Amino acid sequence: MKVVLAEKYGFCFGVKRAISIAEQNPNSTTIGPLIHNPNEINRLKEKFNVKTAQDIDDIDNKKAIVRTHGIEKDKLKTLKEKKFDIIDATCPFVTKPQKIVEELSQDGYDIVIFGDEKHPEVKGVKSYCVTKAVVAMRPAELFGKKLKDKIAVVSQTTKKIEDFLKIVDYLVKRYKEVRVFNTICNATFPNQSAAKELAKNVDIVLVIGGKNSSNTKQLHKIASEYCKDSHLNENADEINKEWFKDKKICGITAGASTPDWIVRSVVSEVEKI
Amino acid sequence: MKVVLAEKYGFCFGVKRAISIAEQNPNSTTIGPLIHNPNEINRLKEKFNVKTAQDIDDIDNKKAIVRTHGIEKDKLKTLKEKKFDIIDATCPFVTKPQKIVEELSQDGYDIVIFGDEKHPEVKGVKSYCVTKAVVAMRPAELFGKKLKDKIAVVSQTTKKIEDFLKIVDYLVKRYKEVRVFNTICNATFPNQSAAKELAKNVDIVLVIGGKNSSNTKQLHKIASEYCKDSHLNENADEINKEWFKDKKICGITAGASTPDWIVRSVVSEVEKI
Repeated sequence: MKVVLAEKYGFCFGVKRAISIAEQNPNSTTIGPLIHNPNEINRLKEKFNVKTAQDIDDIDNKKAIVRTHGIEKDKLKTLKEKKFDIIDATCPFVTKPQKIVEELSQDGYDIVIFGDEKHPEVKGVKSYCVTKAVVAMRPAELFGKKLKDKIAVVSQTTKKIEDFLKIVDYLVKRYKEVRVFNTICNATFPNQSAAKELAKNVDIVLVIGGKNSSNTKQLHKIASEYCKDSHLNENADEINKEWFKDKKICGITAGASTPDWIVRSVVSEVEKI
Repeated sequence: MKVVLAEKYGFCFGVKRAISIAEQNPNSTTIGPLIHNPNEINRLKEKFNVKTAQDIDDIDNKKAIVRTHGIEKDKLKTLKEKKFDIIDATCPFVTKPQKIVEELSQDGYDIVIFGDEKHPEVKGVKSYCVTKAVVAMRPAELFGKKLKDKIAVVSQTTKKIEDFLKIVDYLVKRYKEVRVFNTICNATFPNQSAAKELAKNVDIVLVIGGKNSSNTKQLHKIASEYCKDSHLNENADEINKEWFKDKKICGITAGASTPDWIVRSVVSEVEKI
């Protein structure tokens, strides 16, 4: 099978930074997975003894790494109170909406967060609101909400701008002042447009990344729009040879939290088919 | 000819207020037409001796009325310096974007005004910007503009929200913080949706209002979308009987600055056809 890689794929600035921080802090524990990639998490554990705890109480030493997605404000407070050695690997692009939400809610704005309520980044950002923030993925989730005429709106960093604008337009139509902070991370755009170009020109696409990674899922969504046969896989083990029957070219791309070593192993597996 | 009136048409709050102010201040002079309706301006002149001057220097007494659309900041200053008796008939919905533009430009925001650069309201609002405001009707007019990452955007009060959102979306896609003030006047919406319903259900539409009235032009645009035969007329004199050949029902609506006495005279003329 012939393999073509997307012109741009893989690690973003925040993930690279977090991995480098973890490597420099062996024998520490991250609260929740450092990044949304189980294979890389395993590598960090095996090579640097960087463990992953479910929550603060599960940490068996006092060296805590805050994951790329950030952490809830009260948990950070607990870490400080319990005198943990805190190593902050929060992506700076995530720290920004946290600060915006904190400041603007203090200034009397109602807060709307565009994103997935269950995603750790959104949970963290939301926790910085001193009042009550509304989280929505689409305008329908805002129906019937009673909001002030002063609203500040931020986005989960890995979302699509077009979907963010739907929320913005809905709010601008109904409220006097809508203060829009475009907190979508630019780093995801080149991967996204490269995935689109790739998908248009191949018979099958493999999107390599964590199943719970928001930006990987976004890439998979885009690839599926432009190529009928598109799969999201964590690694080479998940590849099914049946998929490649009657196919000539396979395109491969990877999420912002997917390390190059996994991409390379998938490429070499597919080439053998 | 059978005539049907739109369910909602004519005078808005700001126009009603301005005419009442003018009637209570006879022997005064407005700087530019009080409202965009020449027939009503004539009536005020004949009945109350409220004249219309092109500019401050043309005023022959010291009693100046500021029109509904407001006035440029430096002209207001001149009026004060020259110790004019200033009667402010600026629509409160226009005073609002003036204040927003003044405050936000002082706070370091770049200002974008959605509207018609030549319209007196926009000229007035723009004059309150302490830096340099950009005026645009569509996103293309923003191409290549170098703006700060902090932008405040307001709208001319009589514009369509859908067109405002095109400007908002363009800005949100490109700049970090876009502070959107929806300054479109709600009073124009009922007239607009009634014009749409009217136009769908008649053979010909007459939109009565001033040719330079932004909201009247907007009504005409909407009527033309839903009825093939739509005309903008200032008064009954402009009606052409030829238009009504083979037509059964004529719909009539009027802009926010069109007085009822003009609408009544048009209705009675059309009914005679």
